[in-house]
Amino acid sequence: MPTETTSKRGRPGYDQQSVLRIAVDVFNRHGYDATSMGILAENLGISKSAIYHHVPSKGDLLKLALDHALGGLEAILEQPEAMTGPADARLEFVLRQTIAVLVERLPFVTLLLRLRGNTDIERDALERRRAFDHKVAALISAAREDGSLRQDIDPRTVTRLLFGTINSIVEWYKPGGSLSPEKLADDVITMAFDGLHAAA
Amino acid sequence: MPTETTSKRGRPGYDQQSVLRIAVDVFNRHGYDATSMGILAENLGISKSAIYHHVPSKGDLLKLALDHALGGLEAILEQPEAMTGPADARLEFVLRQTIAVLVERLPFVTLLLRLRGNTDIERDALERRRAFDHKVAALISAAREDGSLRQDIDPRTVTRLLFGTINSIVEWYKPGGSLSPEKLADDVITMAFDGLHAAA
Repeated sequence: MPTETTSKRGRPGYDQQSVLRIAVDVFNRHGYDATSMGILAENLGISKSAIYHHVPSKGDLLKLALDHALGGLEAILEQPEAMTGPADARLEFVLRQTIAVLVERLPFVTLLLRLRGNTDIERDALERRRAFDHKVAALISAAREDGSLRQDIDPRTVTRLLFGTINSIVEWYKPGGSLSPEKLADDVITMAFDGLHAAA
Repeated sequence: MPTETTSKRGRPGYDQQSVLRIAVDVFNRHGYDATSMGILAENLGISKSAIYHHVPSKGDLLKLALDHALGGLEAILEQPEAMTGPADARLEFVLRQTIAVLVERLPFVTLLLRLRGNTDIERDALERRRAFDHKVAALISAAREDGSLRQDIDPRTVTRLLFGTINSIVEWYKPGGSLSPEKLADDVITMAFDGLHAAA
């Protein structure tokens, strides 16, 4: 978008992506329901009408944000490494990539994970998230049936605990710190599959 | 409290514990900030003045609820099994008991884990929660220094991932279902310490 246009309407240099990034931060801080277009405008330092220049409504911002999170996750399952080979290797690939998407798109995935499902947009997103979770759960079951995962834990429990571990990363991980996304993924995979006990 | 007294003031049979339990459910559903005494009264089916008979304020209900969650957690660390013996056995004991308290006091711990820290009561509770977390983190470090936990993961990451796994239980565990609290604790400990890979 040419600067001439934006500078006429508010703080120059905003494009839809910057508006979206700031909106997602505000949603995560205040909750989506509690965030009005007025609060958004205040945080962006532009007028409400300038926001409408970028997106027609608050719901559209939410939709764009959730689509960015879900699109990243869904694309993982279409990679060749997720589709061919032994189930346990596919599972490891999918979990590593899930962590990578989560870290790379941290505020967007945070927003997705905190959804309450009060609007159609939220319910659609939760539906897509459940579809993703079900595909990962199917991989876990396949790896267990192959005999590569232990048999003494119900696969539903395994699925819940793995997602619990991975999703909790949004609550504490600080991008740019001493723990790189790759080492984080290594650590999660090591703990989940090999356990914390030192080798005997 | 004698029934004569309560029946004069509203629905008979409520005591402070029942009021507290219902209040915690309402806080978890609507968020503490968004819950007024009016909403509480509506959910209890009694008048606002009848609530004031049980507790002086919404903050007092929050304080009682958080104290129930934190009291349960803090008591774990005072058990002999948490205080003596090898660090890895103490750690395992503490994690198992943490899961037991979490399941037994599920709505109370859920409330604790979702705190945003907007009031002094919340900040005091978060302070106590941090103190608990630090003591568990110290056990993790001690078990690692003993050589019983693997050395290739930073103890801070181990702490975050273990708490992430355990705390996420509040999001999905249904008491009274086919997964008992004891089996759940076994599963978490097995996955975290021995890993999901089938023994070779």
